[in-house]
Amino acid sequence: MTMGTGQLSSLLLQGYEGRIYPIHPEEDTVLGLRAYRKVSELEELPDLAVIVLPTRIVNQILEECGGLGIKAAVVISGGFREVGEAGAKLEKELLEIAVKYGITLVGPNCIGVSNFHIGLNTTYFPYEQEAGSVAVISQSGTYSCHIYTYAEKSGIKLGQTVSIGNATVLGISDYLKYFADDPSIKSIAVYIEGISNGREFVEAAEYATAKKPVVALYVGGTGYGARAGGSHTGALAGQDELYEGVFHQSGIIRANTVEELFDWSWALATQPLPSSDRVCVLTNSGGAGASMADACGRAGLSLPRLSEETQEKIRELLPGTASTINPVDMTFHLNFADLLKTVPEILFESGEIDGIVMYGIFGTHIFEVFRDGLGDLFKFPVEDARPIIRGLVEGFTRFPDDTGIPVIVSTFMGPEDEEIAFLRSNDIPVSPSPERAVNAMAALCRYAEYRRSL
Amino acid sequence: MTMGTGQLSSLLLQGYEGRIYPIHPEEDTVLGLRAYRKVSELEELPDLAVIVLPTRIVNQILEECGGLGIKAAVVISGGFREVGEAGAKLEKELLEIAVKYGITLVGPNCIGVSNFHIGLNTTYFPYEQEAGSVAVISQSGTYSCHIYTYAEKSGIKLGQTVSIGNATVLGISDYLKYFADDPSIKSIAVYIEGISNGREFVEAAEYATAKKPVVALYVGGTGYGARAGGSHTGALAGQDELYEGVFHQSGIIRANTVEELFDWSWALATQPLPSSDRVCVLTNSGGAGASMADACGRAGLSLPRLSEETQEKIRELLPGTASTINPVDMTFHLNFADLLKTVPEILFESGEIDGIVMYGIFGTHIFEVFRDGLGDLFKFPVEDARPIIRGLVEGFTRFPDDTGIPVIVSTFMGPEDEEIAFLRSNDIPVSPSPERAVNAMAALCRYAEYRRSL
Repeated sequence: MTMGTGQLSSLLLQGYEGRIYPIHPEEDTVLGLRAYRKVSELEELPDLAVIVLPTRIVNQILEECGGLGIKAAVVISGGFREVGEAGAKLEKELLEIAVKYGITLVGPNCIGVSNFHIGLNTTYFPYEQEAGSVAVISQSGTYSCHIYTYAEKSGIKLGQTVSIGNATVLGISDYLKYFADDPSIKSIAVYIEGISNGREFVEAAEYATAKKPVVALYVGGTGYGARAGGSHTGALAGQDELYEGVFHQSGIIRANTVEELFDWSWALATQPLPSSDRVCVLTNSGGAGASMADACGRAGLSLPRLSEETQEKIRELLPGTASTINPVDMTFHLNFADLLKTVPEILFESGEIDGIVMYGIFGTHIFEVFRDGLGDLFKFPVEDARPIIRGLVEGFTRFPDDTGIPVIVSTFMGPEDEEIAFLRSNDIPVSPSPERAVNAMAALCRYAEYRRSL
Repeated sequence: MTMGTGQLSSLLLQGYEGRIYPIHPEEDTVLGLRAYRKVSELEELPDLAVIVLPTRIVNQILEECGGLGIKAAVVISGGFREVGEAGAKLEKELLEIAVKYGITLVGPNCIGVSNFHIGLNTTYFPYEQEAGSVAVISQSGTYSCHIYTYAEKSGIKLGQTVSIGNATVLGISDYLKYFADDPSIKSIAVYIEGISNGREFVEAAEYATAKKPVVALYVGGTGYGARAGGSHTGALAGQDELYEGVFHQSGIIRANTVEELFDWSWALATQPLPSSDRVCVLTNSGGAGASMADACGRAGLSLPRLSEETQEKIRELLPGTASTINPVDMTFHLNFADLLKTVPEILFESGEIDGIVMYGIFGTHIFEVFRDGLGDLFKFPVEDARPIIRGLVEGFTRFPDDTGIPVIVSTFMGPEDEEIAFLRSNDIPVSPSPERAVNAMAALCRYAEYRRSL
C-alpha cells in the first residue's frame, strides 16, 4: 500500500463531504474516484492540494498548483532539509514558490492535517470516533496520526491535528495562533523536538495561553532525545532548562510523556478551572485512595482536612469503617447514590475544596460478566439496576458545569462498562490509573494559576 | 449483591475444579450448590475456609473450623484493628484461635486470594484471561482484584494474588518467601501502605530478590498517602527516605505508580536480564524514537552510538532518510522483514547493545479497517500479508530467549491488532507508550545490576 493510497483511504473513510479529485499519471480511477492526469484538467479550483509525490517533482507540481490559483497545500513528501544540502536547496525553492503564489503550505516531510469536524483526514490512519475539542500540533507524524488509536482507546476526542513536518512556511507559532482563535478548539497539545525561533514562539504561546490551555511535550531535553529529534525534522533541539523557562514564561503546561500530553489536554479541554489547588480524593477503595492522596502530595496539590461539620454530614451516610478526613474513603459500599450524589453534593457545597479526583464508578458490566457466566444462578437484577445507575451517573456528569468545580475520574475498567463509556462521552476525563487522574488535576491547577496571574 | 455472593460467583466462574461447600444459615442451595447449615455438617474436611460474615461471629466460626481440623482460612470480614480498640481486641482473639489450632490465616479485612493456575479466585472480581507468572501481594484489596481488569487490558498475565488485609497471622514477609519458592512465579509485585516489622521485611525481601525480582509500590511516603493508608488497614506508614533505603538495601525495585508496578513486573517476569544498561532504540517513527531516546536519558540508561561497521550494515537495508546512530529510525517503511528480522539480527549480533526498546510493530488491523470501510475499492492483499507478517513476528518473539537480550515493545495499538495480541501472549511486554517501554527496560537493568552485586 502506498502512502497516497493510505491517505486517500483515510479521507474516504472519514466521510469527507467535499469533492475529492485524485491526480494520477496513469490510472483512470483511484479508489473508485475518477482520476485526472494533471491538476490543470480539473473542472474547478480545489481548496486544498495534498501532494504525495517523489521529491524531485514536488516543486514542479506546486508551481503548477500555484499557477492555477490553488491557495493551500499539504506536502507529505520528504527528502528536503532533513536529508542534507541538496534537500535544503529544494526546500528553499519550495518556499519561494509558496511565497510567489501566496500558498499556505503545511510540511513538507509531514503526515498531513485532519479536521474531524468536517471529516477531513489526510493522514494514513483512520480516526474512528466523534470529533472533539483537543487540537494537536506535532513535529512528529506519529503523534498526529498513530495517536488516533490511542485517543480512541482512552476516550479522548480530537478536533484537529497537524503534522508540521519541516515547517517551511507555517510553523508551530502559526498553528498556535490559529487554534487559539478557533472556537471549536478548547485545548492545544503540542509535541516539540526543537524550536527554531524562540521569540516568535513565546509571542504565539502567550497569545494562545491567554485564551486557552496549551500543553507541550518537549523531547530534546536530554542529549539522547536531541540526537533522535535532530535527525528527524531538522529542527534545532536545545537545552532542557531553556525550554523549561520558555514554557513557564509563556504559560504552557509542560508534560513529560505522551500520556501526560493527552491526559492533560483532555482534562483542560473539558473541565472548569479550579479556584485553587484544594483537592478532595473521593473513593470506595482504600488502595486507590492512598495512591491518589500520595500523588497529590507529590504533585504539590493541597489535600485539606475537611471541617468537622462536613465530615459529620458525610459520616451520617457511610458505614463505620469509612474515612472522612480527606481522602473520603467510603470503603467497599454498593450504594451508588452515596458515591455519585449525596456525598459529592456535600463536598461541592462545602466550599472547602476546588477539585475532586475520584475512584470507584462502575456500571453493570461486572454483573453482566457474572450473569453471562453463571446464567440463571446469578440473581442480581442487572436490568433493574441499569437505569438507576445511569440516572445517578448522568447527574454526576453535570456537577462540573453546575458547580464550576472540576472532576476527574480514575478506573481500571474501560468502555466495556457502559457507565465508563458514558462518562467519557459526556466530557468527564477518565484516567486509567489513580496517579494519572491526580496529575491531570494538577495540570488544571497550574493552568488556572497562570490565568489568575495575567 | 452481597460480598459472599460475589466471591462465590468468581470462584464458580473461574472454573475451580475442587469441591466447594457453601455454608448458609437459611438457604438450601447457594448459586446452585447444596448449602450446609454448619461447617460441622460437611462430609469431608475442606482444605480452605473462606469466611465472609458479620464481624461479631467471625471468631466463633474460626474456632469451629479450627476445632474440626481445618488448617487454612481466608477471613474477608473487616471490623477488626482498623476500626479501633474493640476491633483490636477481637483481632487479638482471632490470632489466638489461629495459633491454638495452627491455622494458616489470610486477613482479616481483606479481599481474598487467587491462584489462577488452579482456577481458585476468592475475590469478587472475575479474571478472564490465562494464568501467568506475576504474583501480587497487596495491602489494598483493590490492587489485588480490580486490577484483574487492568491486567487483562494490558496483556499482563497474573499467576497468584493475595490481599493481605490486617496481616494478623501472615504478613508481607511470609508471602514474599512463599512466592520466592513457588516455581510458577517469575516476579512479585507488592503494594505497600506500611511495614510493621522492618527487619523481618528486609530478610524476606533479600531472600526473595536473590531468587526473583520484586517490584514495590509504596504510597505512604507523603503525609497525604500516609493519612489515607493509615485509616485503611491499620498499617504503620512512615518516612519516604526510610522505605527508599529499605527497598534499595534489599534489592527491591521501587515503582512510583500502579502502572509502573505492573509494567515492570511484567517485563521482569518475561525477559532475560540485560548484561549492562546499553540500550538500542529501534523505531519506524521519529517521534516515538525521540520519546524513547529522551526517556533513556531521563532513566539513566546508556544509548551508545553504534559502531560505523554496524551502522553500515543497517544503512544497506534502509532508505536514505533513515537514521542509524541509535536510535535506529527506519522512518516510515513498510518492509516488515527489516523491522522484525534483518535489522534486529544485526543489532543482536553486534555485541554493542544489551537491550532493545522498539516502536512500530503492527499487523493487519489497520488494513482491515480500510477494507471494511472501503470494500472492494481497497486492493491491499490483507489475507496474503497476514501469514507473512505472522511468520516474522513469531521469529521476533524468539529473540530474547535465543540471544539472552531483553526486548520491550511499545505501541498505540491494542490487541485488536492480531500481532500485538500475539506479542503479548508470547511473553513480549507491550507498552502503551514509548516512555513506559523505556522505564520497564530501566527496571530490568536495575534488577540485573542488583543481581550482579550479590
